Amino acid sequence: MRKIKVPGFQFAGVACGIKKSGKKDLALIVADKPATAAALFTSNQVKSPAVLVGMERMRATKIRAVVVNSGNANACTGARGLSDAREMCREAGAMLSIDPNLVIPSSTGIIGIPLPMDKVARGIEKAAAHLSADGFSAAAEAIMTTDRFVKVASARCSVGGKPVRIAGMVKGAGMIAPHMATMLAYILTDAAVDARSLRYVVRAAAEETFNSVTVDGDRSTNDTVLLLASGRAGNSLIKRNSRGEKILLQSVRRVMKELALKLVEDGEGATKVVEIRVEGARSTTDAKKIAFKVANSQLVKTAFYGQDPNFGRIMVAVGCAGVPLNAARVDVLFDKVVVVKGGVGQPVRERAAARVLRRSSFPVKIRLHQGRKKASVWTSDLGHDYVRINSAYRT
Amino acid sequence: MRKIKVPGFQFAGVACGIKKSGKKDLALIVADKPATAAALFTSNQVKSPAVLVGMERMRATKIRAVVVNSGNANACTGARGLSDAREMCREAGAMLSIDPNLVIPSSTGIIGIPLPMDKVARGIEKAAAHLSADGFSAAAEAIMTTDRFVKVASARCSVGGKPVRIAGMVKGAGMIAPHMATMLAYILTDAAVDARSLRYVVRAAAEETFNSVTVDGDRSTNDTVLLLASGRAGNSLIKRNSRGEKILLQSVRRVMKELALKLVEDGEGATKVVEIRVEGARSTTDAKKIAFKVANSQLVKTAFYGQDPNFGRIMVAVGCAGVPLNAARVDVLFDKVVVVKGGVGQPVRERAAARVLRRSSFPVKIRLHQGRKKASVWTSDLGHDYVRINSAYRT
Repeated sequence: MRKIKVPGFQFAGVACGIKKSGKKDLALIVADKPATAAALFTSNQVKSPAVLVGMERMRATKIRAVVVNSGNANACTGARGLSDAREMCREAGAMLSIDPNLVIPSSTGIIGIPLPMDKVARGIEKAAAHLSADGFSAAAEAIMTTDRFVKVASARCSVGGKPVRIAGMVKGAGMIAPHMATMLAYILTDAAVDARSLRYVVRAAAEETFNSVTVDGDRSTNDTVLLLASGRAGNSLIKRNSRGEKILLQSVRRVMKELALKLVEDGEGATKVVEIRVEGARSTTDAKKIAFKVANSQLVKTAFYGQDPNFGRIMVAVGCAGVPLNAARVDVLFDKVVVVKGGVGQPVRERAAARVLRRSSFPVKIRLHQGRKKASVWTSDLGHDYVRINSAYRT
Repeated sequence: MRKIKVPGFQFAGVACGIKKSGKKDLALIVADKPATAAALFTSNQVKSPAVLVGMERMRATKIRAVVVNSGNANACTGARGLSDAREMCREAGAMLSIDPNLVIPSSTGIIGIPLPMDKVARGIEKAAAHLSADGFSAAAEAIMTTDRFVKVASARCSVGGKPVRIAGMVKGAGMIAPHMATMLAYILTDAAVDARSLRYVVRAAAEETFNSVTVDGDRSTNDTVLLLASGRAGNSLIKRNSRGEKILLQSVRRVMKELALKLVEDGEGATKVVEIRVEGARSTTDAKKIAFKVANSQLVKTAFYGQDPNFGRIMVAVGCAGVPLNAARVDVLFDKVVVVKGGVGQPVRERAAARVLRRSSFPVKIRLHQGRKKASVWTSDLGHDYVRINSAYRT
């Protein structure tokens, strides 16, 4: 893996025994000075104490550190969970000699079991001792749960003549769905950005990236996207609606898009990444609603797994999305192969369509012919490995 | 199987070669005289021509016959499909010497391939020759697709001193979800019922039965529930809001409930039938929304398959249903075993909970403590056989 560095940040990823496997399970991301921060948290009504504490901390706009444990989500843990989440921050603050109120906690893993706080404390101490500008990939590894591979991405751009770096890490393989999905993502930049602009950037970049992917349609209790800006690039401060903001957004979006697609590619048991592209809708909301209905259909996803160009199941999902439409105008294409034309199946195209489905990645295009809006959602297939992983997750 | 008869009706189920397997694939249900009829059709926006013709026919309130083919859904077949659906009725009308406008067509099976009309015609001719008051189970067999077993149910009641019979058959194993789900159901009674009352009965009975089960969350293009009343019981005509209507509704609901649970039991690859019971909601709508979210969660369903008392996934689904709630008041029980109390996981109860999950049928109770309304939804688990069946359906 290439070495990723972002000026102004140090990282560590260590093993402290929360995971029985002995794999890395505690990460620290630390800014040399308070960094401007913007965050998105899960829309699930059942929120981990870590998320509740994070939301509280984000009332301020600066943070110094993120402490993440994997292997235990600290969710459905009640008052004890809340005090454990605060304790994680206190310990990180003490080890790093920083204000614990500037520390954001994250947890991911099993739900309903209290955090083993002795191990967490040992992990924080060990991670603090390992902090380094080179620790990016170790941290990315330490936030993983059922992930099969480390997911990182980076980009560069130029703001007012100054080179700017953006880099991100994400974990997540199941419970992936829009609006934050068992997913923890930390995006770091050395750009100097004002807090309002940074909040806009994280929200705008998430829309067509993290909020447009799905593995199983569920959102977790712990999902967090955090964007931190150290300001070390020395550019003049990026403000709302500025040219610099546009440039930064583009690069943040590119990084988030790469991370989001890696989430789908690593979807539990996934063998394919499929783009569901809905075109010709009356509104973007309509287009996204239909795209998600198709992307989350068990019947469509098992057909992808079986490499079966089953356009009938796609039509069924399209008709179920709760969006008014004229079925007799709908076209469906597997990449360039038209399998439904004006609502009528084209079985003669099946052999060509089957060839498209044998690829590891392809687009399904659904044309409604009722407007000019469109949206894409990326999904995985549903195969035996998904069942194997999820029926035996805790055993 | 016990012999089911309903005075005033004859049945036939024959093989005419639509299914490659050579199994029965054409059914007729014929009333001796025009029967009072009430129907529910799929809410999917993509409707089979058979459904479109059926909806048109139901503007009248009497019908004489139902002609059903399995193996081919006649969906996404455009103008040709519409003319084929009408042709099925014409042929049945000619064979039975009845008005073709009093015939309802149904089709179920593969989507997007035109009906083999020569075979259908031959099947109608053969079925007409086999009509008999004893043909109920042959007809029930001929409407099956991926079903593993014939699904029928019957009941008796007494209206104004006259014995009344109710009997039903249903097919469906996948694409089962609320509001009509790849499911064809024909319920027959010899009661004398006025059309308005019959429409009320079919709708009211479906709510807590066919509209409260799910296998995969998809509704098909072809779903139909048809309730026919021959009047042969000789009771005085049942009208809206009468005592007789209440009695009939009770029995129709019992038959539909038995059929609906058989649908879930026969859910593709299902090994378990699980009742998701949500209590203490502000409204029935809220309760049903949460119950369906849990019932359709891939993660919950794979945990059921793995017999894993994973209350975390249930809490995640509860929080995702779009219903405002206080997570800190939610209890979750596997039957009588409390696994979440006031939002806090009770891992100490896991062994007892795991014993509940080993049963082939059990309730999951979710108590919100925010009101007095409740709803139940019945669902199946999601295992390897579901994937096997659905990734290879057409090959």
